[in-house]
Amino acid sequence: MEIFIEPIGRLINEFSKLPGVGKKTAQRYAYKIVDMSESDARAFADAIIGVKRKVKYCKVCGNFTENETCEICRVREKNVICVVKEPKDVAAIEKLHEFKGVYHVLHGVIDPMEGVGPNDIRVKELLARLSDEGVKEVIVATNPDVSGDATAMYLARLIKPLGVKVTRLAHGIPVGSEIEYTDDVTLSRAFVERNEL
Amino acid sequence: MEIFIEPIGRLINEFSKLPGVGKKTAQRYAYKIVDMSESDARAFADAIIGVKRKVKYCKVCGNFTENETCEICRVREKNVICVVKEPKDVAAIEKLHEFKGVYHVLHGVIDPMEGVGPNDIRVKELLARLSDEGVKEVIVATNPDVSGDATAMYLARLIKPLGVKVTRLAHGIPVGSEIEYTDDVTLSRAFVERNEL
Repeated sequence: MEIFIEPIGRLINEFSKLPGVGKKTAQRYAYKIVDMSESDARAFADAIIGVKRKVKYCKVCGNFTENETCEICRVREKNVICVVKEPKDVAAIEKLHEFKGVYHVLHGVIDPMEGVGPNDIRVKELLARLSDEGVKEVIVATNPDVSGDATAMYLARLIKPLGVKVTRLAHGIPVGSEIEYTDDVTLSRAFVERNEL
Repeated sequence: MEIFIEPIGRLINEFSKLPGVGKKTAQRYAYKIVDMSESDARAFADAIIGVKRKVKYCKVCGNFTENETCEICRVREKNVICVVKEPKDVAAIEKLHEFKGVYHVLHGVIDPMEGVGPNDIRVKELLARLSDEGVKEVIVATNPDVSGDATAMYLARLIKPLGVKVTRLAHGIPVGSEIEYTDDVTLSRAFVERNEL
C-alpha cells in the first residue's frame, strides 16, 4: 500500500523537482495545495502555465520580458552595459536601485570543461551592441568563479581594443563579515584589490 | 519599474503562499519553472489541479482518498482505531509500517480558545464507528499540546464508558537525544510516564 494516494504522490514528486526541495518539504507543499480552495489552486497552476507562455527574452539584452524588448532596454541610458550570466543576476542588481545603465545577459559563461565556448553564449550580440549604441563602459558582473573569471578575461581582451572601458565587480571581504572567517581565496583577493585610503 | 515582469512576479507571489517559503526561495522556484520545458511546466500545473479535483475524504475515516472509502478502511482489520488530527498524521504513522489497524481523522482538535468544540470535529462519526465495528481499542494520537491533550481527555471520557479501551501515545525523551537538551515539559512527562525495567 502506498503511503500517499496517486494525485498527492504525483504532486509531491513535482514539488521535489524544485531546487533544494526534499521529500519532506515537497509533502508539506502538497498538503498546502490540498488545503487550498479550488480557485486558489487554479490561480497557482495558471501562474505556472502563464510564466511559460508569456515570458520571452529581450531581443536586445536577453533579459526576461513579455514584449520584444524589455523595459530596461526601452527607457535606460545605454552608455554603460552590465554583463551578467543569467536573468536572475539582473534582478539581484536591480534590487539595489543603484545601477542606471542597461544589461546584457550572456545566458551562460565560457566553460571549456563543459564544452561551452564563446559562440554558445551571447557574446556576438554584445559586440554588435557596442558598435551601435555608443557604449563607454562594459561592467562584467559574472560570478567570481573559474568560468566567470575566464569569461570576464575573454570579454576584456575582445572589447578593450574597441576603445571601450571594461571593468569587473570588486572582490573582497563581504561587508559586515570578519577577517577571521573570510575564506582564503577571498582574503587574498582582498589584498590584491586593496585600495589606498 | 518592477524588478520582476508580471508573470514572474505573479508566480513568485504564488510560491510565497507555500509554508515556510519567503520571497528569496519563491524567486528560486519561479526561475526553475521558467527554465523548465513547456511540457514539464504543464505537468506541474496539472498535478496541482489534479490534487484538487481527485482528492476526496474517506467517508468512514476522513483520510484522503480518490474513492468513496480509502484503501486502509477497505483492507485493514478494524478492531483498533488510531485517532489523529489531520490526514498528514496518517501518512506519518503509515511510514512506520507498524500500525495494522484503521484510522479516524478528526480534522481538527477541540480548542475552546479558537471556538472549536466537539461538534466542529469528527467526534460523532467516531462514536458511530465504535458501535458498528466491534472496536476493542482507540489509540488517541493527537499532538502533545494543550488542545491535543484536551481532545484526548474528552474522547477518553466519552469512549471508556462504552467498554472500549482508550490509550494515548507515550510522551518522553526522543530516542537518540540527550537528557541535558530535553525541554522541561518533555522531561517531566518522561518522569511521570516512566516504565519499570
